[in-house]
Amino acid sequence: MADITRGWDALTGRNPLVSFLDACLRGVAQVVLQNNPLTGLLILAAIGWGAFENGKPQVLGGAVLGLVVGTATALALRVEHSSWRKGLFGFSPVLTGIAVPTFLDDRPLTWLYLVLGAAGTTVVTLALNAVFKRWALTAYTFPFVLTTWVLLMAAYQFDRFHVMTQLTPKFPGEGTLTGAAVDWGLVPTFLRGVSQVFLTDSWISGLIIVVALLVNSRWSALFAVVGSVGATLLALWFGADGASLDKGLFGFNAVLTAIVVGAVAHRPGVLATGYTLFGIALTLFVQMAMTTMLTPLGIPVLTGPFNVATWLLLLPDRHFAPVPNHEQVKDTVISAARRAV
Amino acid sequence: MADITRGWDALTGRNPLVSFLDACLRGVAQVVLQNNPLTGLLILAAIGWGAFENGKPQVLGGAVLGLVVGTATALALRVEHSSWRKGLFGFSPVLTGIAVPTFLDDRPLTWLYLVLGAAGTTVVTLALNAVFKRWALTAYTFPFVLTTWVLLMAAYQFDRFHVMTQLTPKFPGEGTLTGAAVDWGLVPTFLRGVSQVFLTDSWISGLIIVVALLVNSRWSALFAVVGSVGATLLALWFGADGASLDKGLFGFNAVLTAIVVGAVAHRPGVLATGYTLFGIALTLFVQMAMTTMLTPLGIPVLTGPFNVATWLLLLPDRHFAPVPNHEQVKDTVISAARRAV
Amino acid sequence: MADITRGWDALTGRNPLVSFLDACLRGVAQVVLQNNPLTGLLILAAIGWGAFENGKPQVLGGAVLGLVVGTATALALRVEHSSWRKGLFGFSPVLTGIAVPTFLDDRPLTWLYLVLGAAGTTVVTLALNAVFKRWALTAYTFPFVLTTWVLLMAAYQFDRFHVMTQLTPKFPGEGTLTGAAVDWGLVPTFLRGVSQVFLTDSWISGLIIVVALLVNSRWSALFAVVGSVGATLLALWFGADGASLDKGLFGFNAVLTAIVVGAVAHRPGVLATGYTLFGIALTLFVQMAMTTMLTPLGIPVLTGPFNVATWLLLLPDRHFAPVPNHEQVKDTVISAARRAV
Repeated sequence: MADITRGWDALTGRNPLVSFLDACLRGVAQVVLQNNPLTGLLILAAIGWGAFENGKPQVLGGAVLGLVVGTATALALRVEHSSWRKGLFGFSPVLTGIAVPTFLDDRPLTWLYLVLGAAGTTVVTLALNAVFKRWALTAYTFPFVLTTWVLLMAAYQFDRFHVMTQLTPKFPGEGTLTGAAVDWGLVPTFLRGVSQVFLTDSWISGLIIVVALLVNSRWSALFAVVGSVGATLLALWFGADGASLDKGLFGFNAVLTAIVVGAVAHRPGVLATGYTLFGIALTLFVQMAMTTMLTPLGIPVLTGPFNVATWLLLLPDRHFAPVPNHEQVKDTVISAARRAV
Repeated sequence: MADITRGWDALTGRNPLVSFLDACLRGVAQVVLQNNPLTGLLILAAIGWGAFENGKPQVLGGAVLGLVVGTATALALRVEHSSWRKGLFGFSPVLTGIAVPTFLDDRPLTWLYLVLGAAGTTVVTLALNAVFKRWALTAYTFPFVLTTWVLLMAAYQFDRFHVMTQLTPKFPGEGTLTGAAVDWGLVPTFLRGVSQVFLTDSWISGLIIVVALLVNSRWSALFAVVGSVGATLLALWFGADGASLDKGLFGFNAVLTAIVVGAVAHRPGVLATGYTLFGIALTLFVQMAMTTMLTPLGIPVLTGPFNVATWLLLLPDRHFAPVPNHEQVKDTVISAARRAV
Repeated sequence: MADITRGWDALTGRNPLVSFLDACLRGVAQVVLQNNPLTGLLILAAIGWGAFENGKPQVLGGAVLGLVVGTATALALRVEHSSWRKGLFGFSPVLTGIAVPTFLDDRPLTWLYLVLGAAGTTVVTLALNAVFKRWALTAYTFPFVLTTWVLLMAAYQFDRFHVMTQLTPKFPGEGTLTGAAVDWGLVPTFLRGVSQVFLTDSWISGLIIVVALLVNSRWSALFAVVGSVGATLLALWFGADGASLDKGLFGFNAVLTAIVVGAVAHRPGVLATGYTLFGIALTLFVQMAMTTMLTPLGIPVLTGPFNVATWLLLLPDRHFAPVPNHEQVKDTVISAARRAV
C-alpha cells in the first residue's frame, strides 16, 4: 500500500495529466474533508453506483464533467498551486455537477448550463474564500450551494428548462407530514444519510463512502456515522416528515458538521465530542429552518445548513484540545484557512 | 443606596452563586443596554407582571430558564470573564426564553427546545460578535433574533410543535389594515411600545421598565420614551395597521435604536438627537420592510429591525460628540466592542 | 472643449454653489462609473426625455430631488471631501429618487418618503462602504437597491401608499412566459437595456446615455453595448420572458457589470474580455435567480444582480492586466476603494 502511494506520488510529480487526475480525485474526497485520491476514487464509485441504481446514469457524467471543468477553471485562473493540488478547487464543482442533472431535465442546453455552473462555482469559491479568510474560515461547500441555488432559481425564469426538485413552491406549514417508526429499517436510512452528502439516495453508496472515509481517517468515518444516526433519530423524535427521513435527507448535513467539528477542526476528545453532539442538533434545527425559508421558492437546502451551522460552531474559536499535528487533518480546507490568516 | 450597592458588590466578589445571580440580573438589564442588577430585577418583575396579566405565567419561567441556561453555557465555554460579569451573555438568551413559550404551545418538548435554544443563543452570540468586531460593532440582540427565527421556522417542520405566532404565512399586501386614531388611548400604547422590547403586551410592564431605566440612566429612559412615541406616531401618520399599533408593536424596535444611538453610542446633544430622530424613522421603515419580507414565512420580526437599523446608523462612525467618560455607558456592549478592536 | 473644462473647474473652485452642482452632475455620471459632469448632464437629459416620453414627468423631479438631498446629506455628515467632489455620494440617491415616483403613486407623502429615502441612501452608502472596504471593494449601487427595497416593502404595510411595481406577489413558476424572436426589433431593445440602468424604458434615452459614455470613455461605451447585447441574446436563447426582454430588462444589470469588469477594474485586454463575457452570463443568471427570490414579495431586482455578480467577479482579485494609470478610471468608485485599503 505504501509502495503504491509512493509510486503514485512520483507519477503525479512527473506527468501533468496524472497530476490533474490526482487533484480531481482529491477534490471528490475533500467534500468530506479528506485529502486522499483513493478516498476520492471510492466515492466516485459510490456516486456511480447510486446513479445507475436510481436510473440516472447522467448524474455520474455530470459529476465528472463538473469536477474537470471546475478544477480546470481554477488552473486557468492561476489559483495558489498547493491548494489546487489538494483538491480544494474540486469539491464544490463536483457537487454542482451532480446537482444539475439531478434537478433539471436532460437536454443539450442543460450540459452547457452545467459547464457554466461549474466554472462559476470556482469563481464563487475564490470570492467567498476571500471573504471568509478574514475570520480564519473557508466557505466549505457553500460555493456549490450558492451556485446551485442560482442555477435552479434562474431555471424557473427560462422556458427551456424544467425544474424537477419535486418541491412545488408553497407556504410553510401547508401539506402533511407522514410518520416514521423506530425499527431495523433505520439502518439503511442512516447509510442513505451518508450518501445524500453527494445527493445520492442509496444505502450501498453510503456504505462505500464510509469505507472510503475509513481508508483515510477512522475518526472521520466514526463521526460521519454518528452525525447521520444522531440527526436522524432527533428528527424522528421531534416528528419530522417520514418520507424525507427515510431517504436520509435529515442526516447528510449533520454528517458533514460532525466530521468537521468532531474530527477535523478539533482533536477528538470529551469536550469536543459534547460540542459535536450539540452541533448535530444545531445542524438539524438550522436545516429545518432553511427548509421553511426555501418552501415558497421550491428549492432544496442542499448542504447550506452544514455550512451555516459549522460557521456558527467554529467562529467562537473555543479551542477544545486544539489540533497539534494531526495527520489526516493537516491538508484540508481547515488548515488552509488557518494558514491564510 | 450606595451602601447597599457596596454590600452587594462585596457579596458578588465572595460568593460564586451571588456572582452568577448578579451576572443574570445584569443580563436582563443589558437588553436595554444598562449594566445594573437592580434595573434587571425591576425588568424581571415587569416581565412577570405581563406574563400573569396575559394568562401565560410560563413566560416568566421561560425567561428565567433561558437566562440561567444561556449565562451558564457562556461559563462552560469559558468566555471572557469581565464581559460575562457585565451580563453580556445573558441578554439574548433571556429573550429567547421569553419567545419560546410565547410562540410555541406548552408541552414538555417545548422546554427541551427552549434549553437547546438558549444554549444555542450563547454560541451564536460568540459567533456573531466574532464577525461584528471587525467593524467595532457587536451583534446586540441579533443572536436572539436569529436563534428564535430558526426555532420557529424549524417548528413548522416538526409534527410535535404548533406555531402560534398568529401570523399565517401569506403574500404581502393580502389582508386588510385596520385604522387607528390620535387620542388619549395612545398613552398606554406608548408604554406597551416599551414593554414589547420584552415581547410583553402590558402598559404597566412598560411603566416599570421606564422606572428601571431611570434607576440607571435618565437619558436612556428619556430616549426610550422618545423612540416609542416617535415611531408610533409616524406609523399612525403613514396609515399602518391599527391593531398592531395598539399593542405597541411599532414602538419597541425604535425604543432600542433610540437608547443606543441617542444615549449610549453618542453623548446626548443636538446633532446626536437629530440623528436619533432620523434613526427612529429608519427603524420603523426597516421594521415595515422586514414585516413584508417575513409575511410568506409567518414569523415575527422580533428585534431584527433595531439591529439592522442600528448597524446602518453606527457603521458610518460619524462621531457626533463622542462619549468621553460617560458613567452609565462605560460598561455596555458598545464599549466592549470598541475595546475589542 | 479643453477651455470650457478649465473654465468650469476654476468656477467650481470659487463658487460653492457651482461646486455643489458639479458634484451632483458627477454623481449622475458615477452610476455608470464615469467622473465627468458633462456625462452627468447628458444622462440627466436622457432621464428627462424618458420621463416625458412615458408620461411621468415627476420622475425627472424625483431624480433631481434625490440627487440634491443625497449629496447634501453627505455634506451634512461631513464625509471625505475628495470622494464627495467626485460624485461618489450622488449616484445611489439619484436612483432612489427615480425609483420612488416610478413605483409609488403620486401624492404629497410620497415626496417626503423620497426625501427620507434619499437621505437614508447616503447613510446606507457610508455604512456599506465601511463594510466592503475590508475587501477593497465598494458597495456600488447597492445602497440604492437596499434602500429602495426597504421603501417598497414598507409601503405594503402603509395604507397611504399604493405599490405599482406591476409585480403581484406570487409563487415562482406561476404565470406564463411570452416568447421573443431574433429580428431588427432587437436594436431598440439593446438601447433600452442601457436606459433601464436609470429605470427608464426608452431607446432614445439609451442612445443619449451611450453618447454620454463616449464623451468620457470609449471603452466604457463599448462594454456597455456589449453587456446589453450579450445578456439580451443569452436571455433570448434560454427562453426568458419576451415582454420583459423587449423592455430591455435583461440588459441593464449586464451593462453595469461589463463596464466595471471590462473597462474600469481591469485594463481592456483578451483575458479581461473573456472574463467580462463570462461575467455578463453570470449577471444574467444571478438576475434570473433574484427575480425568482423576489417573486413572492412582488418587488423588482433593480441593480442588485449587477452588485452581487460584480462582487463575486472582483473578490477573487485575479489581476488580468491590472490598471496602471488609466485616465478615465482613476477617479471612480473602484480606485477610491483600492486607495482606502
